[in-house]
Amino acid sequence: MPLGPRGEADVTGPIVTLTTDFGLADAFVGLVKAGILARCPTARIVDLTHLLPSYGIEAGAFWIERSFRSFPPGTVHLGVVDPGVGTPRRIVLVQQAGQLFLGPDNGLLGPIAGLAGAVVRAVTLDFLQSEGITELSPTFHGRDLFAPLVGLLAQGTRVPQEVGPVIGDWQRSPGPGPAQSAGRIRGRVLIIDKFGNCFSDIRSELLVERKDLEGFVAYRRLPWVRTYGDRPDGSLVALVNAFGVVEVACVGGHAARALGLQPGDPVEVRYADP
Amino acid sequence: MPLGPRGEADVTGPIVTLTTDFGLADAFVGLVKAGILARCPTARIVDLTHLLPSYGIEAGAFWIERSFRSFPPGTVHLGVVDPGVGTPRRIVLVQQAGQLFLGPDNGLLGPIAGLAGAVVRAVTLDFLQSEGITELSPTFHGRDLFAPLVGLLAQGTRVPQEVGPVIGDWQRSPGPGPAQSAGRIRGRVLIIDKFGNCFSDIRSELLVERKDLEGFVAYRRLPWVRTYGDRPDGSLVALVNAFGVVEVACVGGHAARALGLQPGDPVEVRYADP
Amino acid sequence: MPLGPRGEADVTGPIVTLTTDFGLADAFVGLVKAGILARCPTARIVDLTHLLPSYGIEAGAFWIERSFRSFPPGTVHLGVVDPGVGTPRRIVLVQQAGQLFLGPDNGLLGPIAGLAGAVVRAVTLDFLQSEGITELSPTFHGRDLFAPLVGLLAQGTRVPQEVGPVIGDWQRSPGPGPAQSAGRIRGRVLIIDKFGNCFSDIRSELLVERKDLEGFVAYRRLPWVRTYGDRPDGSLVALVNAFGVVEVACVGGHAARALGLQPGDPVEVRYADP
Repeated sequence: MPLGPRGEADVTGPIVTLTTDFGLADAFVGLVKAGILARCPTARIVDLTHLLPSYGIEAGAFWIERSFRSFPPGTVHLGVVDPGVGTPRRIVLVQQAGQLFLGPDNGLLGPIAGLAGAVVRAVTLDFLQSEGITELSPTFHGRDLFAPLVGLLAQGTRVPQEVGPVIGDWQRSPGPGPAQSAGRIRGRVLIIDKFGNCFSDIRSELLVERKDLEGFVAYRRLPWVRTYGDRPDGSLVALVNAFGVVEVACVGGHAARALGLQPGDPVEVRYADP
Repeated sequence: MPLGPRGEADVTGPIVTLTTDFGLADAFVGLVKAGILARCPTARIVDLTHLLPSYGIEAGAFWIERSFRSFPPGTVHLGVVDPGVGTPRRIVLVQQAGQLFLGPDNGLLGPIAGLAGAVVRAVTLDFLQSEGITELSPTFHGRDLFAPLVGLLAQGTRVPQEVGPVIGDWQRSPGPGPAQSAGRIRGRVLIIDKFGNCFSDIRSELLVERKDLEGFVAYRRLPWVRTYGDRPDGSLVALVNAFGVVEVACVGGHAARALGLQPGDPVEVRYADP
Repeated sequence: MPLGPRGEADVTGPIVTLTTDFGLADAFVGLVKAGILARCPTARIVDLTHLLPSYGIEAGAFWIERSFRSFPPGTVHLGVVDPGVGTPRRIVLVQQAGQLFLGPDNGLLGPIAGLAGAVVRAVTLDFLQSEGITELSPTFHGRDLFAPLVGLLAQGTRVPQEVGPVIGDWQRSPGPGPAQSAGRIRGRVLIIDKFGNCFSDIRSELLVERKDLEGFVAYRRLPWVRTYGDRPDGSLVALVNAFGVVEVACVGGHAARALGLQPGDPVEVRYADP
């Protein structure tokens, strides 16, 4: 057994991340963790968020796809935003970059599944029955279905090839995505973060490498900056943020309140007149 | 030392769950964890919830009793909803199903203590003194008393027989419970979950096996369903939920807002006319 | 390898605590944990709080300094309240009581750095470059800078002497502190906790050992008590709380709402007339 610098054995289990709309006031998340630890006792569970808007598939898809590169191979990601709980709906398992992603087939894993090299499988009823995952409650499949599945996969008790066949008709990205036209890209506010910064669905890859970008939001023209500190406190600015998307921010303030923005509101990037 | 499927040693410590009304904005929960880890360094701590309503004994009792079956023998559960902090009040330790439950004797552990086979002990001052748990702050026994006790028990340093004598006069269930009469069961809304579902205190065991159940709430008659997907979005329904109690829900919506329900409001189950 | 009472190996890694204003709705905290675990796989991460008011340096400084004594030597504390993200600002590392504290040099670690025996270092650009911590995003140094630094220090891969030189001009306490005059100490509400208790910035060390203390707040005279239970429910009282500061509380109630108090409002301790 290898020893770390403090002489401790290297006995760390896999990292399991959780992304849900379960909230933190009820015991839902704790019960998901119980089910995971029952099958993978050494799992190191990391909460991404449990405060997605209820049924907020698009925000959940954003956080999972924009976060997984920070985790090592072997990580298992569980996403549960599941308005279809209790109805027949497919569960998908995505393999990507040596990591696993499990969730309902409703677009939550669409961005991950759409990356080059991803393999997408549909979990079969046969597989669930082989593990005794059959007595599901009517309202909480996070505890009854997803948690045991994640535990089995994290522990390595079962491998992806066993859960079901590769499929091609998985649910794509949950949102419409931005629209491009001459001189402008029109997107939407996807997430308003704790500081009031408004994350849009416009990814930096869509921006031509030009210096004359401008943000337009709520009928206002916003200067393009590299970081918050480029302008004094109170300034409204547009920038590419740490998650690679166009963000509307208020330096030292709360852009969403200052501009009255809500998720879904339009955000536009224009190339300034030459 | 046994090795797991990844070659790691099986070195997992006991699971410790926490259920409190401490909130998450202050460092209270972190300090409880510090005290537990100081005495049981390998503890795997799982938060059930820290967002109980302040002094919300009944909701805390619900989550603890309805959750423990998901955890393995050896788990130690700490519940702290403690309006009596700083006054003389008993601490109880409940043994049930190979698991331990610690908390103030105010009804928080009443449902657990009332289960068949439970052994309930009162923690003695002598025991606390033998462990040096005597210099208690006036306002935070979660850190000063409960956390070290849990750590000692989780680590196995001290066993239940040592903490104090078996008692019979522990505080029973914190709520009045539902009332039954001919053709109907009248309960109350106990918990409104993150999705607006209204959990009542009517357990499924009280329901006669009949197909003609109806829910009545806020002067409305609600159809009885097996799961949310049995009705279209926007439908108000009643069902037995994943926690074995009658729930009032709005499919794809927020029942508490739709019906103006709050904790304590009446919920009734009636047997429909033949 | 030493074995614990359950036969498990003693393989616990260092405790790492987190204190931020990141909130819990976004994946920010999870990504900080990813960065720490990448470099210190056995870290036992304890959240102190992530719900500091945005840019709430003074509250963060309070929780860190008032909490660290509950943690063992070897603990690494990360504090991130960082309105200066994306601008050149110093990162400081404080050594105190065998523990490490990392954060921006904006007063967040001022109270810790001011304790007797503390050694304060400024993290150098050279050190960051030696670890490849150079490609920082414009808006999220918690993930890109602080997390890897904490991981390296927690794991013992790098030691404090390597990160940078000892400095003396670190940012002192973030608040003005209380004012003392004949017969009275005038401070401010620093924190309103989940129960509505109002923590002031008046530390118990400032109180002369006399029995005739009184609290004054919102033009009201409050009786001085030892603990909540000394008065009946609904009573407004002043006391020294579990964190060693003067607190205004409402027994069984919510003092901030009852008195209309907000952070920053004055709190006064007077010595009653003889």
